[in-house]
Amino acid sequence: MLFRRLYSKSGGLGTHRLEALSDGVFGVSITLLVLAIVVPQLTSLELVDGGLGRALVSLWPRALIYVISFFVIGIYWMGHNIMFSYIERSDRVLIVLNILLLMSVSFIPFAADLLGRYPFETTALMVYGLTLAFGGLMFEIVWLYASKHHRLIRKSMSSELIRLGKLLILITPLLYAGAALIAMVNPYLTMAIFGIVPLLYIIPGPIDDLVAGAEVVQ
Amino acid sequence: MLFRRLYSKSGGLGTHRLEALSDGVFGVSITLLVLAIVVPQLTSLELVDGGLGRALVSLWPRALIYVISFFVIGIYWMGHNIMFSYIERSDRVLIVLNILLLMSVSFIPFAADLLGRYPFETTALMVYGLTLAFGGLMFEIVWLYASKHHRLIRKSMSSELIRLGKLLILITPLLYAGAALIAMVNPYLTMAIFGIVPLLYIIPGPIDDLVAGAEVVQ
Amino acid sequence: MLFRRLYSKSGGLGTHRLEALSDGVFGVSITLLVLAIVVPQLTSLELVDGGLGRALVSLWPRALIYVISFFVIGIYWMGHNIMFSYIERSDRVLIVLNILLLMSVSFIPFAADLLGRYPFETTALMVYGLTLAFGGLMFEIVWLYASKHHRLIRKSMSSELIRLGKLLILITPLLYAGAALIAMVNPYLTMAIFGIVPLLYIIPGPIDDLVAGAEVVQ
Amino acid sequence: MLFRRLYSKSGGLGTHRLEALSDGVFGVSITLLVLAIVVPQLTSLELVDGGLGRALVSLWPRALIYVISFFVIGIYWMGHNIMFSYIERSDRVLIVLNILLLMSVSFIPFAADLLGRYPFETTALMVYGLTLAFGGLMFEIVWLYASKHHRLIRKSMSSELIRLGKLLILITPLLYAGAALIAMVNPYLTMAIFGIVPLLYIIPGPIDDLVAGAEVVQ
Repeated sequence: MLFRRLYSKSGGLGTHRLEALSDGVFGVSITLLVLAIVVPQLTSLELVDGGLGRALVSLWPRALIYVISFFVIGIYWMGHNIMFSYIERSDRVLIVLNILLLMSVSFIPFAADLLGRYPFETTALMVYGLTLAFGGLMFEIVWLYASKHHRLIRKSMSSELIRLGKLLILITPLLYAGAALIAMVNPYLTMAIFGIVPLLYIIPGPIDDLVAGAEVVQ
Repeated sequence: MLFRRLYSKSGGLGTHRLEALSDGVFGVSITLLVLAIVVPQLTSLELVDGGLGRALVSLWPRALIYVISFFVIGIYWMGHNIMFSYIERSDRVLIVLNILLLMSVSFIPFAADLLGRYPFETTALMVYGLTLAFGGLMFEIVWLYASKHHRLIRKSMSSELIRLGKLLILITPLLYAGAALIAMVNPYLTMAIFGIVPLLYIIPGPIDDLVAGAEVVQ
Repeated sequence: MLFRRLYSKSGGLGTHRLEALSDGVFGVSITLLVLAIVVPQLTSLELVDGGLGRALVSLWPRALIYVISFFVIGIYWMGHNIMFSYIERSDRVLIVLNILLLMSVSFIPFAADLLGRYPFETTALMVYGLTLAFGGLMFEIVWLYASKHHRLIRKSMSSELIRLGKLLILITPLLYAGAALIAMVNPYLTMAIFGIVPLLYIIPGPIDDLVAGAEVVQ
Repeated sequence: MLFRRLYSKSGGLGTHRLEALSDGVFGVSITLLVLAIVVPQLTSLELVDGGLGRALVSLWPRALIYVISFFVIGIYWMGHNIMFSYIERSDRVLIVLNILLLMSVSFIPFAADLLGRYPFETTALMVYGLTLAFGGLMFEIVWLYASKHHRLIRKSMSSELIRLGKLLILITPLLYAGAALIAMVNPYLTMAIFGIVPLLYIIPGPIDDLVAGAEVVQ
C-alpha cells in the first residue's frame, strides 16, 4: 500500500529521460553491431599473397547482416521517435513495457552475430526473426497501453489515427514471425524477407513532400 | 581554502548533466549485458548434426541472468528517474555519491557475466547479490543526503513522503543482502529471490490509474 | 496509402532525438576506437627484461591510427553539429539518410582496427579511405536533400551559403577517395594524406576571432 | 577563404551538443572500465575445490584500478560539468581542444587495463600517470582558451575567479606528472598518489553547505 503510494508517483513523470535512456540503448546497440565483423588474422605469408582482400571478401555474410541489422535498429528507433512524439506522459507500466522493448533491441547484436556466423542456418534465422518479431510486438503493446482511452497520449489525437497505428505497427512483427517460420522450409526466402522489410520503411511516398511543411514537434 | 572556493561552485549546479551522464552509464551497462551471451563456436560437423539448437539451449542460464539483470538495471534506472524528479539541485557531495551509485550499476555486467558462467555457485551468487545490495544502499544514501532539511530537493515535498522514501528504498538492498547470505545455505532459493524481486516493481497497483492524470514533471 | 499516412507524420518531427541518437553513435564509436589498442600479454621473463616498454612502442601504428581516427570522428561530429544547427526539421528521408551517415561512422572502428593491424597494406588503406569517403558523401547527400528549396533548413539561410556548403562538404570525400586510389601506387602517401586531412579542419583562421561574438545557436 | 567562411560559423554555436558528446564519451569510457575485470575461467575440478573465491580475490589489483579509474573519470566529468557551466559559447578551436580532452578520457580504459594487468610495473604506472596528466593539461588549455578576454565564458565572471581556475586546474596534471616520474624510483608511492588524488576532490568542506542554496545553473 505505502509501497505503491511512492512509486505510483512515476505516473506523473514526463518522457524526457525515458527517451534519453532509449536513445542510449538504441545508439549503443547499433554501434556494437560492428564488433561482429572481426578483423581477419593473417600470417605474413598469407598477407604477401594478397590474402587480405580474399579474407575481407569472405566476410560478406557478416557485412550483409550488419547493413540489414543497422537499418532494422535505425527504423525501430524511427518508430520509437514517432510513437513518443504522440506520448506525452509516462507511468510505471509504460516504463516496464519500454524496458522490454529495449531488451529486444539490445538483443539484436547477439542475434546478428549469430546469423553472421551461421548465415543460412534455420536455427540462426529463426532466432533473428523471432528477436525482431518480439521487438515489433513490444511496439504494439506499448502503443495499445499508451493509447487506450488516451491514457498517456496527446488528447488531440483522433481515435481513427490511433486505430491506424495499432494496425500498421502489427505488420512488422507478423512479417518477421512469418519469415522465422519460413526458415524451416526455405532459408534463402527468409533472408530475402529480412533484406526487403526495412526497404518498406525507407522509400518515401508522395505525401512526404506535403507534410514537410507541417508544424514541428520536438 | 581557495581550492574549496572554486569547486564549491558546483553547489549551484542543476542536475541536467548529472542525469545525462547517469542515463549514459545506465544505457551502456544495460546494453553491455548481452555481450555475456557468447555465440557458440561449432564445427561444420556439429552444425550439420543440428548442434546449433542444442548449443543455444545450453545457454539458458546466461539468458536467464540476462533477463533478470536487464530488469534490475531497468528498475534501478526507473528509481533514479523518480528520485531525481524530486531532486532539483546538485552539489559536490551529491555528484560523488552518484558516482558511487553509477559504479555499482556499471559493475553489474561483470557480476552478471560471472553468475551466467557459474549459475548456482555460492560465490558467484554472493558477488551478484552484494553488487545489487551495494547499488540499493547507494540509492538510500543519495536520498538521505539530498532530502536532509530539504537540502537539494523540492521545497514542496512533504516530510511524510521523504520518510516514506527512506523506508521503501531500504527494502531492495536488504532483500539482496539477505539473498546473498541465503546463498551459503540454498543457492536455488537465492536465484529464486533474484528472479522475484524485480517483479515487485513491475506489477502495477490500483493507484497507478489514478495518478495517470497528475501534473507532468519533466 | 494508409501506411504512408501515419509514417509520413515524421515530416513534422523536430531534430532533437535525431541529434541525441547521432551524438550517441558518434560518442560510442569514438570511444570504441581504443579497444583496437590491445594490452600486450607478456611472460614474467619478458617483463623482467623490460619487455613492456618495447611491446608498447611496437604498438605505434595502432596508436597513430587511433589518434587519426579520433580526430576524423571528432571532425565529422563537428560537421554534423554545424550542419544540424541549420536544419530545423526532420522527415523520414532525412532520418534514413542520417542512418546511412551513422552507419559509415560506426564502421570506422572496424576500418581503424583493420588499418592498425595492417598499417601499410593497400587493401586496408583502401577500406579505411573508402569508409571515410562514404561518410563524407553521406554528409553531401544529407545537405543536398535538406537544403533543396529550403526543404528542412532555416528559411533565413542565403542560397549563396547553401551552395558554398555543397562545395565545401564535397572536398572531404574527394580527398579520401583520392587517397584510397593512391594506395595502389604509394601506401605511404595515402597514410600521409590520412594524417594531414584532419589538420585542415583543426587550424583556425583569422575570421574565427570575429565570429566568436556572433549570436548563439543552440 | 571561402572554406573558413562556412566553418567559422561554428563560432556562433552553443555548447549543448558539445556537452552531449562529452557526456557520451565520459559515460561510455567509465562503463568500459569494467571490461578489464575478466571473469576467471575455471575447470570443474577447480570450481569444486572452492577455487572461484580464490580466483576472484586474485583480481584485487584490477578491482583497485577499476575503483580509482572510475573516480578519476567521474571527477574529470565533474570538472567538465563545472567548467562548462561557465562556458556559454563554442567555436572551432574549443571543439578541437575538447576533442583532445575527450581523447585523453577515452584512453583511460586502455591505461587502466594495462595497469590492472601489470600493477606495479614502472612502465604501466608511467603510461597511466601521463595519460591522466595529459587529460588534466587539456582542461587547463581549454580553460586558458575559453577564458582569455572572456572569449567564450560568461561576461559576469570575475577575473579573480578566472585566475583562480587557471591555478587550481593546473594542480591535477602536475600531481599526475609527478607521480609518473616517481614511478621510476618507487612504484608503491606512485600507486599511493593515484589512490589519494581523487580523495582531494571528494571530501567536502564547510563552504559546501553555504553554497547549497545558491542560484541554480543548468
